[in-house]
Amino acid sequence: MRIDIITVLPELMRSPFEGSIMKRAIQKELVEVHFHNLRDYSTNKHKNVDDYQFGGGAGMVMSVEPIDLCISKLKNERKYDEIIYMTPDGETLHQKMANSLSLLGNIIILCGHYKGVDQRVRDLHITKEISIGDYVLSGGEIGAIVFCDAIIRLIPGVLSDETSALTDSFQDNLLSHPIYTRPANYKGLSVPDILLSGNFPEIEKWREQKAYEHTKTRRPDLLEE
Amino acid sequence: MRIDIITVLPELMRSPFEGSIMKRAIQKELVEVHFHNLRDYSTNKHKNVDDYQFGGGAGMVMSVEPIDLCISKLKNERKYDEIIYMTPDGETLHQKMANSLSLLGNIIILCGHYKGVDQRVRDLHITKEISIGDYVLSGGEIGAIVFCDAIIRLIPGVLSDETSALTDSFQDNLLSHPIYTRPANYKGLSVPDILLSGNFPEIEKWREQKAYEHTKTRRPDLLEE
Repeated sequence: MRIDIITVLPELMRSPFEGSIMKRAIQKELVEVHFHNLRDYSTNKHKNVDDYQFGGGAGMVMSVEPIDLCISKLKNERKYDEIIYMTPDGETLHQKMANSLSLLGNIIILCGHYKGVDQRVRDLHITKEISIGDYVLSGGEIGAIVFCDAIIRLIPGVLSDETSALTDSFQDNLLSHPIYTRPANYKGLSVPDILLSGNFPEIEKWREQKAYEHTKTRRPDLLEE
Repeated sequence: MRIDIITVLPELMRSPFEGSIMKRAIQKELVEVHFHNLRDYSTNKHKNVDDYQFGGGAGMVMSVEPIDLCISKLKNERKYDEIIYMTPDGETLHQKMANSLSLLGNIIILCGHYKGVDQRVRDLHITKEISIGDYVLSGGEIGAIVFCDAIIRLIPGVLSDETSALTDSFQDNLLSHPIYTRPANYKGLSVPDILLSGNFPEIEKWREQKAYEHTKTRRPDLLEE
């Protein structure tokens, strides 16, 4: 997979790509991530990439031209499966969407910033709009970090069998059961006896029951799907 | 506001706090953010902070002792309003929750990693569990970045009036109307005439109508609330 990220703040995005799973995926050459600083595509001498909005109102708008120049250049170089705009207006990311988008070849991610992008960017280029949740962030950069992490860890070979994504939350619409590690007793709090019993069929039954109860209490909506 | 973040990967979290809104809020001394490397609280010679889970199964579990030592030390130093665990099991973050949590004084954020934390950490210390959405990430660090950005930008004085959070998406349960900036014509795509009319009451009416239509098409659930 190749991911091209267009942003006004590439430096803000660096550290999450330089640690943990995303770093490993890049080192294993399972994914390439390229950052494009939108200011490099500004055609005015102040390197502006935003402007006031027509019709008045608070907040700046990302101009159409620099984004169009950047995306057009990339599209001339290769074919893209999706050109994604990170915006609170988009479809809310969920695990099944992440599963399916992790199978793509080349994608562009445009990080919204300020009040958003000129509508004509969306009309000209964007094929998919994604939100990571119903809350507002200071920019699409943080949404793009979340989205990249969610899809990159699903690319075959990124996670070891040991940490297989298949047993993660949301893959089966159940939250996790309680988990415990050593010591068996800590400040008077003990690990449930069943987990020390060595009776694995019973342990499995206990875990399923606890996962179901936990989901029913906290997220009954997941059970209804 | 003071935020103490407990993590196994502090370096992964740096850059988002060193740019944009969060950097400005820290420089203005409107928020203090302290990172605590969990490995500094390990009591074994290998600096381990995780272990296999009782009862068998894939994935490592974050041990109770280092986390208990770190949180107990912080609690001895000051009073905390909430001790938050970032986990896919938690309550899903939304804007109203961000609004209310942005008013807190001191909080601790524990970033889950691996398969999660020993249940006894939750029993002993955690007062609130938060998820940023129904998808799995490689660690709670990325969730904590999202959560911090969402609440820090709401602290009075962080955003200028110009970029006031009050006109953001989700504050009124409506998505944004289309926005445009110069040029008025780009590659044959024109800004709607109404926005160039100077008739501000009519512009306001057009925007409300478009925001409503956009929300009805994309997120009818927001209108039902």
